[in-house]
Amino acid sequence: MTVPPEVLTTFLLRLADDHLILGHRLSEWCGHAPMLEEDLAMPNIALDLIGQARALYQYAGEVEGKGRSEDDLAYLRREREYLNCLMVERPNGDFAHTMLRQLYFAAFMHPFWERASASADATLAGIAAKAVKELAYHVRHCGEWVIRLGDGTEESARRMADAVEALAPYVDELFETDPVSEAIAEEGIAPRLDDLRPAFTATIERVFAEAFLDMPEAAWPQSGGRQGRHGEAMGFLLAELQHMQRTYPGATW
Amino acid sequence: MTVPPEVLTTFLLRLADDHLILGHRLSEWCGHAPMLEEDLAMPNIALDLIGQARALYQYAGEVEGKGRSEDDLAYLRREREYLNCLMVERPNGDFAHTMLRQLYFAAFMHPFWERASASADATLAGIAAKAVKELAYHVRHCGEWVIRLGDGTEESARRMADAVEALAPYVDELFETDPVSEAIAEEGIAPRLDDLRPAFTATIERVFAEAFLDMPEAAWPQSGGRQGRHGEAMGFLLAELQHMQRTYPGATW
Repeated sequence: MTVPPEVLTTFLLRLADDHLILGHRLSEWCGHAPMLEEDLAMPNIALDLIGQARALYQYAGEVEGKGRSEDDLAYLRREREYLNCLMVERPNGDFAHTMLRQLYFAAFMHPFWERASASADATLAGIAAKAVKELAYHVRHCGEWVIRLGDGTEESARRMADAVEALAPYVDELFETDPVSEAIAEEGIAPRLDDLRPAFTATIERVFAEAFLDMPEAAWPQSGGRQGRHGEAMGFLLAELQHMQRTYPGATW
Repeated sequence: MTVPPEVLTTFLLRLADDHLILGHRLSEWCGHAPMLEEDLAMPNIALDLIGQARALYQYAGEVEGKGRSEDDLAYLRREREYLNCLMVERPNGDFAHTMLRQLYFAAFMHPFWERASASADATLAGIAAKAVKELAYHVRHCGEWVIRLGDGTEESARRMADAVEALAPYVDELFETDPVSEAIAEEGIAPRLDDLRPAFTATIERVFAEAFLDMPEAAWPQSGGRQGRHGEAMGFLLAELQHMQRTYPGATW
């Protein structure tokens, strides 16, 4: 491969940060879900995401070659060094909002991992082969909730429609390309991000049709996460996420 | 004085932690107050509290004699080492809840500082002489809001009554005595805490009468803060409070 290590590292950190931050957000539901079964399902999905983040951080650390461990990368960077998209750092809102965000992310990552399992990069292909099965479950589970709530009571349908509106500005950033993602696609390491849009849209249209939800209106798209420019919520999230590691540096158990 | 330094240090840290934690909570309103004038008043009250915390931490550090600075004491202890009462760490709730909590604290601290300005300890007497004027303003300002909201619209009265109920379990801890506070009172360093109850009750009864609020029913009193046993909210508060100092250790500007 002819991709410089810093380009691959950046790409891997973007992916890893998406998974860590969304996994952390989702874990905030632990113990607060509206029913016991879901109180198990959501942390399980969060664990899938954090597991994927670990694999990606380990590999990013290797590629970077500066001796940073997965914990260094996950916990000891500063806000502007996190490269996650903005959608994953948004506050959870209500259950409908959380489930729709989860569906959006899964509907994006499932075709991503599907194609990345044929990656020219053997390590990424290995991570993808495991992740694709997990993501297929996330699409199904979260899609079912979006349908149940969108096609539910008057209040659940209103909340789901509010979630569609609230998250609309954060969808486009998922497909954003730049020289980093272009170079990665060029080398066959990962799919072109904007090539994933048809698969994403097909999933969302199918779910929304069953849920009697309207597809979101074009919203002013938000951007900046991939360059480390985050919203107000991110600093508070990191304060909490990093607290243990910064209070007890290098702690193990 | 015959009080061992560790007893005085503990007493000063309890006071300092009350002021720091409540000041931090109140500062969360900065930029979110319901009107501009109040958006200045609340951070000003928060600054008074944090200023008092600084003076108390500096003195606690001197008395302790282990070379800990005010920043070490404010930012680098662990949760179980904070000795604030539980009321000050409670989440803000709505504006009514915040104002009532502020009134309770001020109605307690104003007679405390009034008497402590004649303290046998010259440093504490100096801190008290400045604080007593600030606290008189807090009582007046917050009392006016409690009256305005309690004697306001149906909704504002309901919210104020909810706040009275929500905070009821946290009032008694203010007056809690133990061998530490007894030893301090014995030496004339600070008033006996339970001697402050008549002044507190007089203030609250006067405000509640004008606000058409009922005095709180006896609630199961919560306790533990003075021994470092805190509620769930405390860890999240500390994660945010300590983040800068733990991320950039020893930072100055």
